[in-house]
Amino acid sequence: MKVPLSGERFRAVYRLTMPEAEARERARAIGVEQTIEFPADLVTGGDIRDHIIGRVEDFLPSGEGVFEAVVSYAVESTGAELTQALNVLFGNISMIPGIRLQRFDWPPAFDGKFRGPRFGAEGLRQLLSASNRPLLGAVIKPMGLSVKDLAAMAYDLALGGLDVVKDDHGLADQSFAPFRERVERCAEAVSRANRETGGRCLYAPNVTASPTALVERARFAKAAGAGGLLVTPGLAGFGALQTLADDETLNLPLFGHPAFAGSFITRPSDGLSPFALYGQIHRMAGADAAIHPHKGGRFPFTDRDIDEIVQGVRAPMGTLKPILPMPGGGMTIENIPEMIRIYGRDVIFLIGGDLHRRGNSLSDGVRQYRRAVEAAAVP
Amino acid sequence: MKVPLSGERFRAVYRLTMPEAEARERARAIGVEQTIEFPADLVTGGDIRDHIIGRVEDFLPSGEGVFEAVVSYAVESTGAELTQALNVLFGNISMIPGIRLQRFDWPPAFDGKFRGPRFGAEGLRQLLSASNRPLLGAVIKPMGLSVKDLAAMAYDLALGGLDVVKDDHGLADQSFAPFRERVERCAEAVSRANRETGGRCLYAPNVTASPTALVERARFAKAAGAGGLLVTPGLAGFGALQTLADDETLNLPLFGHPAFAGSFITRPSDGLSPFALYGQIHRMAGADAAIHPHKGGRFPFTDRDIDEIVQGVRAPMGTLKPILPMPGGGMTIENIPEMIRIYGRDVIFLIGGDLHRRGNSLSDGVRQYRRAVEAAAVP
Repeated sequence: MKVPLSGERFRAVYRLTMPEAEARERARAIGVEQTIEFPADLVTGGDIRDHIIGRVEDFLPSGEGVFEAVVSYAVESTGAELTQALNVLFGNISMIPGIRLQRFDWPPAFDGKFRGPRFGAEGLRQLLSASNRPLLGAVIKPMGLSVKDLAAMAYDLALGGLDVVKDDHGLADQSFAPFRERVERCAEAVSRANRETGGRCLYAPNVTASPTALVERARFAKAAGAGGLLVTPGLAGFGALQTLADDETLNLPLFGHPAFAGSFITRPSDGLSPFALYGQIHRMAGADAAIHPHKGGRFPFTDRDIDEIVQGVRAPMGTLKPILPMPGGGMTIENIPEMIRIYGRDVIFLIGGDLHRRGNSLSDGVRQYRRAVEAAAVP
Repeated sequence: MKVPLSGERFRAVYRLTMPEAEARERARAIGVEQTIEFPADLVTGGDIRDHIIGRVEDFLPSGEGVFEAVVSYAVESTGAELTQALNVLFGNISMIPGIRLQRFDWPPAFDGKFRGPRFGAEGLRQLLSASNRPLLGAVIKPMGLSVKDLAAMAYDLALGGLDVVKDDHGLADQSFAPFRERVERCAEAVSRANRETGGRCLYAPNVTASPTALVERARFAKAAGAGGLLVTPGLAGFGALQTLADDETLNLPLFGHPAFAGSFITRPSDGLSPFALYGQIHRMAGADAAIHPHKGGRFPFTDRDIDEIVQGVRAPMGTLKPILPMPGGGMTIENIPEMIRIYGRDVIFLIGGDLHRRGNSLSDGVRQYRRAVEAAAVP
């Protein structure tokens, strides 16, 4: 039963919300469940017992009735694949309440195996010629508008001086605004606005779909002049996001949308931490920006959640580039000063409906948005 | 703003755990969030206001502090695509605690758009020549074994008279048991055992991976003689599962594994109901069997959870075939009589480690397992 193991391990930190004795037992059980899922007493092979089974490296109290267990795994257990790495980190234990994956280490063995974001924060800034300021994003919506109306909206938004115009994540390939027609017209509209303003606004259509359609749509979007792509990994899979990031011929920045994956982060005792989900896992899968709700909007995100996201998108992960947080979810121009205090310069703001309430046109709304960001921006 | 809508709608039932006034407001907000995500007062188009926005059709108390809201959506909002249908049903609201998607209707418009399971319960029974009895499954594991050891285990299991031998979902493409070598050897081992027993045991390797690798592995497995495929949609995406189910040339039954998607079902107030996840969504994506924990094992599934799964896998969904539940997660031969009382004949049992504790060989263990099922089986 000889297996060629390097001895290199990576560590995952789990937050366990349960009484101490149960948490100590649970930490050991995680090491078994996430690897061999087999009665430990039946394991006879030394390498499996000594290396493959997850090992509890540390166990610390972390508040009233909360403990942090550090469990290490052999790097070989992941096969250097994203799906299997996620499976080792949080596969079966996702079904047990009281366990949250808080964060994980990046072992040297992962460098070169996961390229992560193609652009990252700095690459996005270069694309947009915006070296040192917060970036401004907005959305074309609502679902149900015709291609003509959506393209007119994309034009007006870009004309006002945005950096990123993205599809609403609910725009797929519906009869009222078919994908190909929408993407051609909206990319053209943003390009026309850029010619008029001298700007470099990029249009990011939503390509979320089953794998074959996703890749086809991404290629079509590239050919039509899209400057980025919106993907919802909760629906398409993190592996699908990675496929787009790894595609040399595509070479477009990717914006990860949080829909459908919300059940991972609704309870602080369960699932994935915002640090792990929006920071580490999105980066590992190749997103250049992680869209997420800001606090105080339509979603109940807390100060701690936001702090974790800000830390997670830039935390060291070997050769992987830092990415940008992209907070939205009901933000208005009035939120800008507070958001700049929290996110600093390294952020893409995302405002939707509020721009429709400003001035005489959407372009006017965007100009007010820009002025608010410039006025509040860190000197 | 004319959009070509048929007027046909489908209904989703949400379980809201919150005070009544909040739940009533939340039901309306769901209809907006899941469709236009836009301030309703800014919507001027009649079709969007009258048809696209989700409509609250019913609101009922469902226990102390729990309400059921029925929200209907225009079928066109889904674009007849799985990813977008899931997005409409539970995209952004997945980020809000207290909302659970309990179930959804199957509108006639979905028939022919989603083929669902290729085999279903009856197709699996035909493949296995087992028209009227519970089916017996087991697993080759643990991670860390060599291909030779795994193939020997597959042979012994098949020789004992199993119906399905599947890879552990943690077997991917690791150095200690590379995918291609493992699949060739294990398929050959099961085939050899079948020749000796006259049985029809099928081997289902784990093909979960990023989309390109997933399809390559599925094709390789088919060519190597695999009789089914194991896919973890929480890792690969439900769209990837659908791609395999829709592939005419593949034509293999698919076993859906619950890993990583557990956060959808850990809290009764949040996420997806077991009915919706294991019954409806797995079927919509094309799984022929939904693997899930039985109660009383290593995962805290309740009587109600199991009842929902049993109902969900066979609930009417237009032209979609019923599928089989595949309960596991720490089951032993002693659990069989109780499980037959719960699942009846329409089930694939899944036993792992326990078979290693029986008799002198794994084949002996399987024979005891068969006898237990035959003894307990409904006449």
